Amino acid sequence: MTTQSLVSQIKAKKSFLCVGLDTDEAKLPKHLQNHPDGVFEFNRQIIDHTASYAVAYKPNIAFYEALGIKGWEALKKTIDYINETYPELFTIADAKRGDIGNTSKMYAQAFFEDLNFDSITVAPYMGKDSVEPFLSYKDKHTILLALTSNQGAFDFQTKIVEGQQELYKQVLMTSKTWKNSENLMYVVGATKAEYLTDIRKIIPDAFLLVPGVGAQGGSLEEVCKYGLNSNFGLLINSSRGIIYASGGKDFAQAAGQKAKALQQDMAKFI
Amino acid sequence: MTTQSLVSQIKAKKSFLCVGLDTDEAKLPKHLQNHPDGVFEFNRQIIDHTASYAVAYKPNIAFYEALGIKGWEALKKTIDYINETYPELFTIADAKRGDIGNTSKMYAQAFFEDLNFDSITVAPYMGKDSVEPFLSYKDKHTILLALTSNQGAFDFQTKIVEGQQELYKQVLMTSKTWKNSENLMYVVGATKAEYLTDIRKIIPDAFLLVPGVGAQGGSLEEVCKYGLNSNFGLLINSSRGIIYASGGKDFAQAAGQKAKALQQDMAKFI
Repeated sequence: MTTQSLVSQIKAKKSFLCVGLDTDEAKLPKHLQNHPDGVFEFNRQIIDHTASYAVAYKPNIAFYEALGIKGWEALKKTIDYINETYPELFTIADAKRGDIGNTSKMYAQAFFEDLNFDSITVAPYMGKDSVEPFLSYKDKHTILLALTSNQGAFDFQTKIVEGQQELYKQVLMTSKTWKNSENLMYVVGATKAEYLTDIRKIIPDAFLLVPGVGAQGGSLEEVCKYGLNSNFGLLINSSRGIIYASGGKDFAQAAGQKAKALQQDMAKFI
Repeated sequence: MTTQSLVSQIKAKKSFLCVGLDTDEAKLPKHLQNHPDGVFEFNRQIIDHTASYAVAYKPNIAFYEALGIKGWEALKKTIDYINETYPELFTIADAKRGDIGNTSKMYAQAFFEDLNFDSITVAPYMGKDSVEPFLSYKDKHTILLALTSNQGAFDFQTKIVEGQQELYKQVLMTSKTWKNSENLMYVVGATKAEYLTDIRKIIPDAFLLVPGVGAQGGSLEEVCKYGLNSNFGLLINSSRGIIYASGGKDFAQAAGQKAKALQQDMAKFI
């Protein structure tokens, strides 16, 4: 998907909401727990009830991997369902991959070709040649970890590098020099909205994927204030807050209500 | 597997060879290309012909993911085959995973429970709470990326942090403070053997997984000279150099010869 298509969708829906599909088999509503295809069925209903309010969907790959082959089947059915039923939606494989060049090439093939996601999250630790194989795909996007929303972000990401700046800023600056860097987006934890001003100085134009609004404690208003750019430039994710809004038979309706409320909050900034 | 079992196996086989199963469907010998289960069949024969000379096997997960569900089936069959036929072998999921705590927990479940690997490679960028879920498994090992063997290692890993030391050393030191850190091993690229002296000062006792001997250009002698400790403490990986030693019907025999030659080189240091 082109960035322009994503921007048009944001404008049309007045939303930059991303729904995180961290679908945990153990947390499925009771009536789906013995369903032969419970995880996919859960996702399908969540998507149907939230798609008017969201522009992006982000399956968290770990939750599918944990189920073995049937998890990969559920993931494949989910992404195929989105691509066929709602081709306008932007899809993110939240996979945090990254390895030496010939291996990253295989991961890119898995997520961009076999599964046909629009984008994937990638870890920066192994540097340029671990990321460029993802960047080489036209109209596919590589969402590089910069500043994450967890406590461990302070272990390395915020440490000063070469006496100049924090590691996450070094990641932002260095990544801009990589081939096809126009295909980069970045993960920036919403729980650190005060950092966004500095980040926007380095990457004024890039899209930011912001986890951590809701369950992880970030503020939507802060993120919009410091993160929006002329292209909107934000995808704000909510996972547990939406998909587990209700644990009962009305889980999808409740998710729809939660997504709608977030969309209405976002509309004020568009 | 306990570290002691791994050490005993190294002593018995006079080898610390790890065989990397970077099995690329496009590179299968001709006679296996139309085999209904070509990737597994290739792996099975490679394992059978090299198991006398190697102590560890490391499937590179990307190569299986790139094949979609049938790739995961081949991976599952491969790890099950090793665990059933050669339970003494140490198994490594080369997956480079790592995410916020509740997600890393799912990855740990996937590789330690569903697939039953002895260990997994993990990226350090997201810090403590992204790694500790892996460390919480008794007799399972978390192989943290420290200094990798690719060119991109110089983008961030070797940069000086907080005016004190390189990032990869900071990763080594910080990780020692994490809960159950006795379950840590580390990836250290063999192409940088001169760094090993410094590394051994920080982590004298830990096992190092050393990629990059062979195709990536590292020297076995250098690595042994600076990396061995009283527990041996090394697993030296060779992937392409072994599994693609011949592209013909004799691929497994040729792999066995290559593994044997490496084992004999290693025996001098044991």
